[in-house]
Amino acid sequence: MVEFWFEFASTYTYPAAMRIEALARARGIDVSWQPFLLGPIFREQGWDDSPFNIYPAKGRYMWRDLARLCDEIGLEFRKPSQFPRNGLLAARVACAFTRAAWVPSFVRNVYTANFAHDRDIADPEVLSDCLGSLVEDPAATLGVAGSDESKARLRQNSERAKALGIFGSPSFVVEGELFWGNDRLEAAFDWSRKRR
Amino acid sequence: MVEFWFEFASTYTYPAAMRIEALARARGIDVSWQPFLLGPIFREQGWDDSPFNIYPAKGRYMWRDLARLCDEIGLEFRKPSQFPRNGLLAARVACAFTRAAWVPSFVRNVYTANFAHDRDIADPEVLSDCLGSLVEDPAATLGVAGSDESKARLRQNSERAKALGIFGSPSFVVEGELFWGNDRLEAAFDWSRKRR
Repeated sequence: MVEFWFEFASTYTYPAAMRIEALARARGIDVSWQPFLLGPIFREQGWDDSPFNIYPAKGRYMWRDLARLCDEIGLEFRKPSQFPRNGLLAARVACAFTRAAWVPSFVRNVYTANFAHDRDIADPEVLSDCLGSLVEDPAATLGVAGSDESKARLRQNSERAKALGIFGSPSFVVEGELFWGNDRLEAAFDWSRKRR
Repeated sequence: MVEFWFEFASTYTYPAAMRIEALARARGIDVSWQPFLLGPIFREQGWDDSPFNIYPAKGRYMWRDLARLCDEIGLEFRKPSQFPRNGLLAARVACAFTRAAWVPSFVRNVYTANFAHDRDIADPEVLSDCLGSLVEDPAATLGVAGSDESKARLRQNSERAKALGIFGSPSFVVEGELFWGNDRLEAAFDWSRKRR
């Protein structure tokens, strides 16, 4: 079992979210999808914005590197006109319904909306589209996501992320062993195989 | 031709420095060894220490990740008792003699001293050992490295690194295209092949 920890605003999480399910299936590994918020963790480090905005050289490089990465794996990519986008409501959806079979498809739809179609994932209408035919009643699903219970669940998940030592997205956790970055997805899966 | 930009204090540059020559030879690629100082670039970002010390969660992860990486490729590794170490004199040596055939061996010796043998690479005696049998007169080599001309050369190289958009080590530059991190060594080589 590999835990996949993701923040919807994160750029490098886009290719990871798009790759993980097929890779897991090919290797016979179960993935546990764990949404969390990176904002509170960043704020504790003194950052009130994405480090890619705070440190421009790092940011310029990231956009170029991400474009190359997506190109290499044939993944559509368009630099969003706004960055970072607020993934709070999307994370509440994923967290409230974490065990539902449609969550991985929803997560991929949200990343695709943000990083391929330049849509604002903070907009409930965009999220309705992302829920599309995955659920019977997207509006009701968003309603559940906005409940106090769902808010509390996401807060708890974000606190658990911090307790696991997570400081960035994507992160992968295999029996307490932490792997950070799209580049470490295969290493996390290798680790999981070694532990069997 | 791939430019390999390295800062001696950098942890992830250790595996990159140890891997690059064999990989380049296997692929028929020329490597240009480019020492630089990351300190001035970090200071401009408001950091007076390694980000791995400033951000403890990131630091804890890095040491664990580096140990795993080295283990995977069979590279000896011991967490240095002091971090970061001052690589100024070592960088001046590598910069002053940049075209000498012994520089790659010297660079590997310095990284090994720091990250496998826990030796202080700021100490001229340690650097003398790293120069070992590579040069006839290690003391004279260190003397040249300490000259005003050598100091100026390293400053110029560090300014060129910044102008290339470099913000971390290791970095690889292929005809102006920047790749950052030990994880991107293969991608830089692939890029170089595409451009032929």
